[in-house]
Amino acid sequence: MGSDWINERTERLARQLEATAVERDRQGGHAAAERQAIRDSGLLGLLIPQDAGGLGASWPTLYRVVRRLAQADSALAHVFAFHHLQVATVLLWGTPAQQRTLLPRSQSEGWFWGNALNPQDTRLVAQPVADGWRLQGPKSYASGSVGSDRLVVGAQVQLADGSSARLVGHLATQAEGITVQQDWDAFGQRQTDSGTVHFHDVFLPQRDVLQAPGSTSTPRATLRTLVSQLIMANLYLGIGQAAYEAGRRYTLERARPWPNGHAARLADEPQLQQRYGELWLLLRPAELACEAAALQLQAAFEQGEALDASGRGALAIAISEAKVLAHRAGIDVSSQVFELAGAGATSGRLGLDRFWRNARVHTLHDPVDLKLRDIGRHRLEGHVPEPSSYS
Amino acid sequence: MGSDWINERTERLARQLEATAVERDRQGGHAAAERQAIRDSGLLGLLIPQDAGGLGASWPTLYRVVRRLAQADSALAHVFAFHHLQVATVLLWGTPAQQRTLLPRSQSEGWFWGNALNPQDTRLVAQPVADGWRLQGPKSYASGSVGSDRLVVGAQVQLADGSSARLVGHLATQAEGITVQQDWDAFGQRQTDSGTVHFHDVFLPQRDVLQAPGSTSTPRATLRTLVSQLIMANLYLGIGQAAYEAGRRYTLERARPWPNGHAARLADEPQLQQRYGELWLLLRPAELACEAAALQLQAAFEQGEALDASGRGALAIAISEAKVLAHRAGIDVSSQVFELAGAGATSGRLGLDRFWRNARVHTLHDPVDLKLRDIGRHRLEGHVPEPSSYS
Amino acid sequence: MGSDWINERTERLARQLEATAVERDRQGGHAAAERQAIRDSGLLGLLIPQDAGGLGASWPTLYRVVRRLAQADSALAHVFAFHHLQVATVLLWGTPAQQRTLLPRSQSEGWFWGNALNPQDTRLVAQPVADGWRLQGPKSYASGSVGSDRLVVGAQVQLADGSSARLVGHLATQAEGITVQQDWDAFGQRQTDSGTVHFHDVFLPQRDVLQAPGSTSTPRATLRTLVSQLIMANLYLGIGQAAYEAGRRYTLERARPWPNGHAARLADEPQLQQRYGELWLLLRPAELACEAAALQLQAAFEQGEALDASGRGALAIAISEAKVLAHRAGIDVSSQVFELAGAGATSGRLGLDRFWRNARVHTLHDPVDLKLRDIGRHRLEGHVPEPSSYS
Amino acid sequence: MGSDWINERTERLARQLEATAVERDRQGGHAAAERQAIRDSGLLGLLIPQDAGGLGASWPTLYRVVRRLAQADSALAHVFAFHHLQVATVLLWGTPAQQRTLLPRSQSEGWFWGNALNPQDTRLVAQPVADGWRLQGPKSYASGSVGSDRLVVGAQVQLADGSSARLVGHLATQAEGITVQQDWDAFGQRQTDSGTVHFHDVFLPQRDVLQAPGSTSTPRATLRTLVSQLIMANLYLGIGQAAYEAGRRYTLERARPWPNGHAARLADEPQLQQRYGELWLLLRPAELACEAAALQLQAAFEQGEALDASGRGALAIAISEAKVLAHRAGIDVSSQVFELAGAGATSGRLGLDRFWRNARVHTLHDPVDLKLRDIGRHRLEGHVPEPSSYS
Repeated sequence: MGSDWINERTERLARQLEATAVERDRQGGHAAAERQAIRDSGLLGLLIPQDAGGLGASWPTLYRVVRRLAQADSALAHVFAFHHLQVATVLLWGTPAQQRTLLPRSQSEGWFWGNALNPQDTRLVAQPVADGWRLQGPKSYASGSVGSDRLVVGAQVQLADGSSARLVGHLATQAEGITVQQDWDAFGQRQTDSGTVHFHDVFLPQRDVLQAPGSTSTPRATLRTLVSQLIMANLYLGIGQAAYEAGRRYTLERARPWPNGHAARLADEPQLQQRYGELWLLLRPAELACEAAALQLQAAFEQGEALDASGRGALAIAISEAKVLAHRAGIDVSSQVFELAGAGATSGRLGLDRFWRNARVHTLHDPVDLKLRDIGRHRLEGHVPEPSSYS
Repeated sequence: MGSDWINERTERLARQLEATAVERDRQGGHAAAERQAIRDSGLLGLLIPQDAGGLGASWPTLYRVVRRLAQADSALAHVFAFHHLQVATVLLWGTPAQQRTLLPRSQSEGWFWGNALNPQDTRLVAQPVADGWRLQGPKSYASGSVGSDRLVVGAQVQLADGSSARLVGHLATQAEGITVQQDWDAFGQRQTDSGTVHFHDVFLPQRDVLQAPGSTSTPRATLRTLVSQLIMANLYLGIGQAAYEAGRRYTLERARPWPNGHAARLADEPQLQQRYGELWLLLRPAELACEAAALQLQAAFEQGEALDASGRGALAIAISEAKVLAHRAGIDVSSQVFELAGAGATSGRLGLDRFWRNARVHTLHDPVDLKLRDIGRHRLEGHVPEPSSYS
Repeated sequence: MGSDWINERTERLARQLEATAVERDRQGGHAAAERQAIRDSGLLGLLIPQDAGGLGASWPTLYRVVRRLAQADSALAHVFAFHHLQVATVLLWGTPAQQRTLLPRSQSEGWFWGNALNPQDTRLVAQPVADGWRLQGPKSYASGSVGSDRLVVGAQVQLADGSSARLVGHLATQAEGITVQQDWDAFGQRQTDSGTVHFHDVFLPQRDVLQAPGSTSTPRATLRTLVSQLIMANLYLGIGQAAYEAGRRYTLERARPWPNGHAARLADEPQLQQRYGELWLLLRPAELACEAAALQLQAAFEQGEALDASGRGALAIAISEAKVLAHRAGIDVSSQVFELAGAGATSGRLGLDRFWRNARVHTLHDPVDLKLRDIGRHRLEGHVPEPSSYS
Repeated sequence: MGSDWINERTERLARQLEATAVERDRQGGHAAAERQAIRDSGLLGLLIPQDAGGLGASWPTLYRVVRRLAQADSALAHVFAFHHLQVATVLLWGTPAQQRTLLPRSQSEGWFWGNALNPQDTRLVAQPVADGWRLQGPKSYASGSVGSDRLVVGAQVQLADGSSARLVGHLATQAEGITVQQDWDAFGQRQTDSGTVHFHDVFLPQRDVLQAPGSTSTPRATLRTLVSQLIMANLYLGIGQAAYEAGRRYTLERARPWPNGHAARLADEPQLQQRYGELWLLLRPAELACEAAALQLQAAFEQGEALDASGRGALAIAISEAKVLAHRAGIDVSSQVFELAGAGATSGRLGLDRFWRNARVHTLHDPVDLKLRDIGRHRLEGHVPEPSSYS
């Protein structure tokens, strides 16, 4: 089950998702069949170590798979990637005992993980009880929660000094007291299953706590945010690449030559050729930067606890570079490629506006201008961004 | 009924259209009630001379009204503007006798004009018969045709030498043999009523011919294209202005401060303020250029048949400048403003993606790169664009 | 001596300056002969009212003259414009008695005014004495000081409460104790005579004080900064226009067709034509914004003391819009036009790099990003910039 | 003499060149002492195989050295890099016998190679004589010719069918009949020694012919152009990197905070930090693309004659990507960084305008828009550029 097997499975899954992506973008809601196809692909085990029954793939491999799926369907690619983000959470935060239990079970039981960690929503509260915690309250924008098997959950805990800190644990989505509400209504990334999870007096056993409240983080432990940020970058890039390819095909196969233009065949128009070159030079740097950042993330993981704040900071900057470049490639290519394909490409039947809508919704996860500022500060005086939920 | 009256009516109509714009964008199809509101506004008479009972407004006034309505609903603003394009066709191409008949009737009977002139679709054919012509075939992308009272129609005529030329006339949309098919399905500008008009053996009397096949054009007669191009520019600008205003309001009223940002209030964030400045500098030049071009068009109309090719060419370039600037303002502001308003602004309920979708669909009317080339050729060696259906 | 006379004199002077501009850029230093030519042109009287013997031209006229001269030689155009800034200072800050004296003398004696007001250099100090002040210290970046007849001078005065305030007066450059040092060494705008003026115990009579220390400003009195900022904008634009024209001529007259290109004649290359269109769309908006701002400044002057803070603020924003657009047009056109003219255009003999060097040096007067922020703040919440030496 | 040795020598040489770069830019002409320092560094042997006594470094290493030197002095870096281009010419075009002779001599005698191959100047003509050719005529823009030991020379030969073809050979610069004229006068890259070489009846022995007229090229043989194009890219990038670093240092050490700004220290200004981030995102993609292209070139060299047209074409595109990105990084960073450093940075004494002047002159080698078109054509339909002197 080496890289050929992964490539072949990825390609097959991508085509399957692509076949119905336009129609499902129109419908929104939960894509049950496609999530089953993802399960069936075997690719949910990419990050699970081989000794736990998984594929033990490298980070560069994982991100390439995410990117390929994003070309086909960026909403389901997000759900897919966020599953891996939760697995990475177990790898980064779980005790050896937790890892020994959870990773083989995740693999053998085919768990699809969802996220209930949105740091901007602090309404979910945990109260200490014997042997664990009681969770009460809602958590919004929980990507992949609808239809998931397992959730990584973050809840606020009141500390003795009156301040509050975050507790993170994992729970079966079917656990008593948990309900998932499908209330995601953005105009893009419509099937990310980013609903609100409601917790009604839910018991979280102490053994399922992944991060205790107030625990201090090592640089390695803060890699979770960077894993997540590089997922975003690859999703944005995949969207841009798919928009480019869709425009290219329309130009070659269906678009008419320009009235009053230079060339009898649209693809021979020098100005249009130049602009395909220009748009490519948005995508290509993003791809180079995503690949470079993935290699750097791999190296950081391999360093283990030896990773220091400065190494973690340099990685954060490399990932920010990739994210900003991919953000712009995704947005600009998906918007501008229509000028090369022409008016016919706006037919609702083709659904080519989904690329811009998906890129637009997803690229607002956190402000791109702050990433630019982080990069500038780093170059100016060597500052590294403070580890946080966004950097 | 001076400019205050026009402003007040425009403002009232704009608000009325805006109130339901999000909902109607979702539905698509024909906006019967809103077209009635347009009729009721009295603004269909803007270009009709006062001695024919109309308002006799200037071109700058007309374009300002179009722009204001585009801010509210760019699809209906297009339908509204294309009504005036047909009235302008009567002013430019109609004989004095036709003008004496048609303009007062248009005003008194409240005609809403539609367009059936798409030059890229040459399937509609006219055969000469006694006292006129027989029309047979379809005409696609006929803006404003659904629900119209009167159509300006272009049909191909076979000339003696085997070549073909265009005949233009006007017909009641209810004339026998005419059916209008609602087949417009673009992902934006969804209520422009740009259906396909089918002509089944329709009789066009000779007295209703506005432009005989093979008739030679004076510079003045070719102004129709420029009137139309400047309509586009003002629609694009109106869309960009509305997107800016919607983003601004969201930033002030609902958006959260940036996590890890500089300011406690989002509107105080220096980087965000700068970007509102940047986006404004896309809109403002477009507005200045639209205003300058409207004044220049007014002067060209006032010259009458004294307008020469070089004056017509300079006007074409001024309008191209406005169109390119407005094109970019429309597309870029409607896409980028989300980065200032944040993720919450992508809620489907708000419908703020309609600005980009509307701009994107409409700005593909003809290739922007050819306009840039026209401008460059003009500056380099003084060339003026050949009058055509697009320049 | 109407507008034809002004145009003719401007054109003649521009050609005279242009003839030696490349050579003088190389030399740097003081352009005595050219300053004499400016005196001889009669254009130093543009802003002086007709009843004082001057031309009484409007602001739009003045700025057009500045722009035309900047196309020929932006360093001397700066000196020329800053003369008018000092005349405007008398118009804005002078008492009626001062105006009755100074303006006719300036005209009849052919004064060339210089600036010694740089607000960032506070080393020049004024001590009160009987009937006036004693000035001691240096003032750097004093544009047009070398070779001038009259200076507007700003000096710091220690107030009773320990704070300090600015005193502004006028002095003959030949007054005892004044020496002008030619120490300007920037890589562009080399002949702006922006030396350091040294004051050795110089007496400033009370009757020659234009602005007393601590005097409160009306909105009208703060127009001086705006006059100056709009001078900058027109200088930047003139540089950009001249670079465009020089590139255009080189393309037509001397540049070779592209190897592997599309067209036998370079000027027929579609991509090159498009880029001439693109660069034009940097210049044209700047020109429209400069013209609009000049009209608005004219209206503000005509309002007199009725001008309020909000009207002054709206004008400041309009001028900032013009300045940012002209800044970018100047920098980008003067840099990019070489890509259209080709390698031959970089011959040192032609001196075409002077456009970028001049634009680059001059556009750093104050940070463009703050102007963008001012514009953004104004659009967001209606804020107007605080009147200062830069806004 | 591994990579540490190379790095150490490169760093030392770079600092030596940098120390006098501003002064020498002012003077222009030939930099005899610095060319001696280059000889002394031992780095002229980078591409010469180890069995011929050279360093046998890889392409990625060579390009990194070129880039580092370009940061210090892009004119001498060009001369340095073009030496290696001529060595590469021997590697690509020389017979085994020529390589066995020339490479060890080049190393042991410390030859500094120059270029006399400008394909746009076809005035240099070769006539066949017994055992060789007679060369007559001038060759302009001969980079590195002044002060060189050995030249690669291209001359036109009249073929039997009346057409003409290029002959390439090598000659000692001191050979009888060769004179080098220092007539390079561009406003940047002033010490590239790009003079005109005059050949007065110069004998070129047949054994010193590197490429016979009319010989057909293999894909491998056409790599010379690509070696040269990637030299350009690394020079442009080095210039941009140096400008960034100079701006950064000025911002930190000498620039004043913004008047009316946000922060007490300029480096804390959020807008300025963002723009340092923006400029970095011009440099970083260019660097990633230069590195990727160098690896791809290395692989192509290692393929030897097995390299096919499609592999050569893909490499040409990768190098074009790097060149366009580096072109823009060089030009835009060297122009815009002044907006971050402020007016003081334009003092003539600092010579910071040399970055833009050097980048501007050098980036006009061949039209960037054609590279964009090549890239666009490749992405659209898989076309590869026709091998030529520029692609």
